[in-house]
Amino acid sequence: MKDEELARAAELVRPYRVTRGEHFRLRDFDPHDTGPFAEDEGDAASDRTRAKRLLADGVKWLAEQQDVLYAQDRWSVLLVFQALDAAGKDGTIKHVASGINPQGVNVTSFKQPSAEELDHDWMWRSWRALPPRGHIGIFNRSYYEEVLVVKVHPELLAHQKLPPEVCGDDLWQRRYRDIRNFERYLADNGTVVLKFFLHLSKDEQKRRFLSRLDEPEKHWKFSAGDVRERRHWDAYQQAYEDAIRETAAEHAPWYVVPADHKWYTRLVVASAVVDAIARLKLHYPRVGENEREGLAAARAELERE
Amino acid sequence: MKDEELARAAELVRPYRVTRGEHFRLRDFDPHDTGPFAEDEGDAASDRTRAKRLLADGVKWLAEQQDVLYAQDRWSVLLVFQALDAAGKDGTIKHVASGINPQGVNVTSFKQPSAEELDHDWMWRSWRALPPRGHIGIFNRSYYEEVLVVKVHPELLAHQKLPPEVCGDDLWQRRYRDIRNFERYLADNGTVVLKFFLHLSKDEQKRRFLSRLDEPEKHWKFSAGDVRERRHWDAYQQAYEDAIRETAAEHAPWYVVPADHKWYTRLVVASAVVDAIARLKLHYPRVGENEREGLAAARAELERE
Repeated sequence: MKDEELARAAELVRPYRVTRGEHFRLRDFDPHDTGPFAEDEGDAASDRTRAKRLLADGVKWLAEQQDVLYAQDRWSVLLVFQALDAAGKDGTIKHVASGINPQGVNVTSFKQPSAEELDHDWMWRSWRALPPRGHIGIFNRSYYEEVLVVKVHPELLAHQKLPPEVCGDDLWQRRYRDIRNFERYLADNGTVVLKFFLHLSKDEQKRRFLSRLDEPEKHWKFSAGDVRERRHWDAYQQAYEDAIRETAAEHAPWYVVPADHKWYTRLVVASAVVDAIARLKLHYPRVGENEREGLAAARAELERE
Repeated sequence: MKDEELARAAELVRPYRVTRGEHFRLRDFDPHDTGPFAEDEGDAASDRTRAKRLLADGVKWLAEQQDVLYAQDRWSVLLVFQALDAAGKDGTIKHVASGINPQGVNVTSFKQPSAEELDHDWMWRSWRALPPRGHIGIFNRSYYEEVLVVKVHPELLAHQKLPPEVCGDDLWQRRYRDIRNFERYLADNGTVVLKFFLHLSKDEQKRRFLSRLDEPEKHWKFSAGDVRERRHWDAYQQAYEDAIRETAAEHAPWYVVPADHKWYTRLVVASAVVDAIARLKLHYPRVGENEREGLAAARAELERE
């Protein structure tokens, strides 16, 4: 991608990038937004084609850069995906990560914690899954669940077997603080942390749930629990707003990605990753004088064979 | 152990317990100290016998308490051991932990980081090794090496493959901060963190090295590298003083344990663990009304057989 294309990616992403929490309000963000692209009418068809081409360009560039990231073996990249059900996390991850050499990407899907995981502190399983240098790690859900689903359903805390002595009123504040500290530490040690909230409207979620019920080949995606969680819609929106407000930072930005149009969600996410990686100005390791002599000697030896 | 014995353990340990870093100076602590016990003369023999009996009592009590810790499955305990070579870490761990059911204790010895570990942030391997709830974890060396050996030999940083962009002058301060945050987090989540510095004098280290060289059955313990490290004695003392000053806290105390007399080192360490566990006031899980009915039903069924 040329500089001007990189600049365009940065431009596209800017409205959704949250680096300071104060004054952040989720309702200032429209799930239906499609940025500079027509939504359903007028130039919709040609705009959608253009968006898809941009996505393909971005993914191709990411695949090339991942190769450099891997060779350079200094930085790592952590992409955190959070969203309510049917917001399109899995599809977005698939589209953005598919072009990349799987040797350099690890996707970790965090489900209900196992007994072994519950026997540890709540960040333990995330820490274990962190991407090594040179790799891109993708968290499909993450430690943020601890201040989202657990905050909406505080009865889940009981499973965490915390000693009552450490469960004060400030539990959530302490968890936000610990997340801030964790992400500060990661950034300080060469991990680029990007956090995506796929922001879906309540109407669109309903539409997607109904379509899962209507189409037999989507039945496997449907769980009755998803509809039950929908009853807590407002509490979840509040929990997301709080989490973003408390943990947005320049070194660990949140992206509030409009999720009502899947093609646009994917483009925004890919552009955000492109933008963040472009800032690293990656380059293949430079070979020093000594190594060059070594390479020359190796060539000479091979040629003598 | 009766209350008065527990009080005596707390009393013995108090002079070595550092919970606030400001004004801390290593030279205020005497490696040769033997507390209330005679050292080599006068009542030495009977005092040494008494100290050994106290140690045995403490270890026995710890084994009992570990059973309750395990059953209650809420708290975990992390014992961090740091020292220069020949200070007696291995022997101390062996004596203090030996009586305890091995199912409830994990000892992790941190050596030179592996390639996989170097590919992660410097705390990663410690986080993975944290004790689950109900367990006692023992770190033989730890994440503190990152502000000790690495600070004395900053060339080791090069192996950590940090991007140059994140290696500012404040690297050590950031590491102290990250350790403070980490230990605050652990304490907040039910891990009791105790840190032991076995404080050895330079003379006694020399004596122990020579004895390793003199006695063939101790040769395996000797490495020429140990003597090389001795050249950096003052830098290490300074690094330990800094680390303790920066990370001592009420919820994660350091114990500066006199290490010139092994029998006393062990007694102080065991007493510190006894004291910290006594404060938890552990108890077996109480069985509720429902469970009691279930137990009664089970008994009735068995008796009907």
